Amino acid sequence: MEATYRALCKHGYAELTMQDIAAESTKTKGTLHYHFEGKQDLLESFLEYLLDQFEARTETVPGETAAQRLHEYIDELLTPSDEESAEEFRTAILEIKAQSPYNEAYRARLREFDHTLRDRIAGFVADGLETGEFRADVDPEETADFLVTIFNGAETRAAAVDRSPECTKRYVHAYIDDTLRADGSNGGDVGSGDSDDATEAGE
Amino acid sequence: MEATYRALCKHGYAELTMQDIAAESTKTKGTLHYHFEGKQDLLESFLEYLLDQFEARTETVPGETAAQRLHEYIDELLTPSDEESAEEFRTAILEIKAQSPYNEAYRARLREFDHTLRDRIAGFVADGLETGEFRADVDPEETADFLVTIFNGAETRAAAVDRSPECTKRYVHAYIDDTLRADGSNGGDVGSGDSDDATEAGE
Repeated sequence: MEATYRALCKHGYAELTMQDIAAESTKTKGTLHYHFEGKQDLLESFLEYLLDQFEARTETVPGETAAQRLHEYIDELLTPSDEESAEEFRTAILEIKAQSPYNEAYRARLREFDHTLRDRIAGFVADGLETGEFRADVDPEETADFLVTIFNGAETRAAAVDRSPECTKRYVHAYIDDTLRADGSNGGDVGSGDSDDATEAGE
Repeated sequence: MEATYRALCKHGYAELTMQDIAAESTKTKGTLHYHFEGKQDLLESFLEYLLDQFEARTETVPGETAAQRLHEYIDELLTPSDEESAEEFRTAILEIKAQSPYNEAYRARLREFDHTLRDRIAGFVADGLETGEFRADVDPEETADFLVTIFNGAETRAAAVDRSPECTKRYVHAYIDDTLRADGSNGGDVGSGDSDDATEAGE
């Protein structure tokens, strides 16, 4: 799986071959073919592996309040785990997303990832409603769905037009503090230190 | 250009050939090659054509207030001009976005489109600030950038995981009414008729 990651970053999705992946690993192409029918089969497992990795990394999210945990989770989502290959990896994932309508197995994995993000974010929002941190008319499912859309947009624009996801982080932190919070004040300083204007929100 | 549109929807980007495009037009493949070096050259012109079409379609945006015009523009952005081939076309555009890091000409066109959207939206927001419709601490450039990210996310998720952009329309309308508007009330009924919870915003 690590070899697949390196090969994807180096060659992109379209040009990637089983030989490229073997070259990044200690295995031969023959061994890879023994375990995987081909590139698509291997990449399907790779998408599963990515989701597992992400879930392990975000199993516990720091923060004392639900709002703080939501800030942290969004930060984790929008921060590449490997800064050096971030651009290449993002492009490869966008290529796989664009293949999704032609490949039911990719689509199933991408949907699983999408649902996982939505459920997790909806959980943080529901927690914040229970504690009264978030406005009573906030809908956890719809808010989560909106935030997942924003995450997808940040990734797409970063790959397609080189627009850094850092700005999106700032906007989302402000959105949490301005639109979701019951008091409209910036009570969570985790990850939102650079959005000064958020403190004036909701007046 | 219309033949290119039809051929793209029918074959997708990766598999598309000059022959496929010729087959959709009254021209021969030879004639196409006389005008365009190849598929990439033709598609570069196609992206230019799309931007021109979009700009012509949105040259005047209805609405009596800046907020109403912003609602309308976002609606126009998120509504396919050709419902029948919407899915196929969206997928083809996502494939082209994923090619952007490998193709400087595509990248330049996609950036132009990105800038056009940002400038236009920033204009509506600036108008709304001038008339006092929007909160004084709203930044037109940052708000426009955020909304373009959301647009990209809606398109990507629609293609990759079959998530309808209709929900995004609703969220964005609520965002304009809840977060941007100075009075926090839903004063613009254009396009936001189905976001009832927006009226309780900003309390």
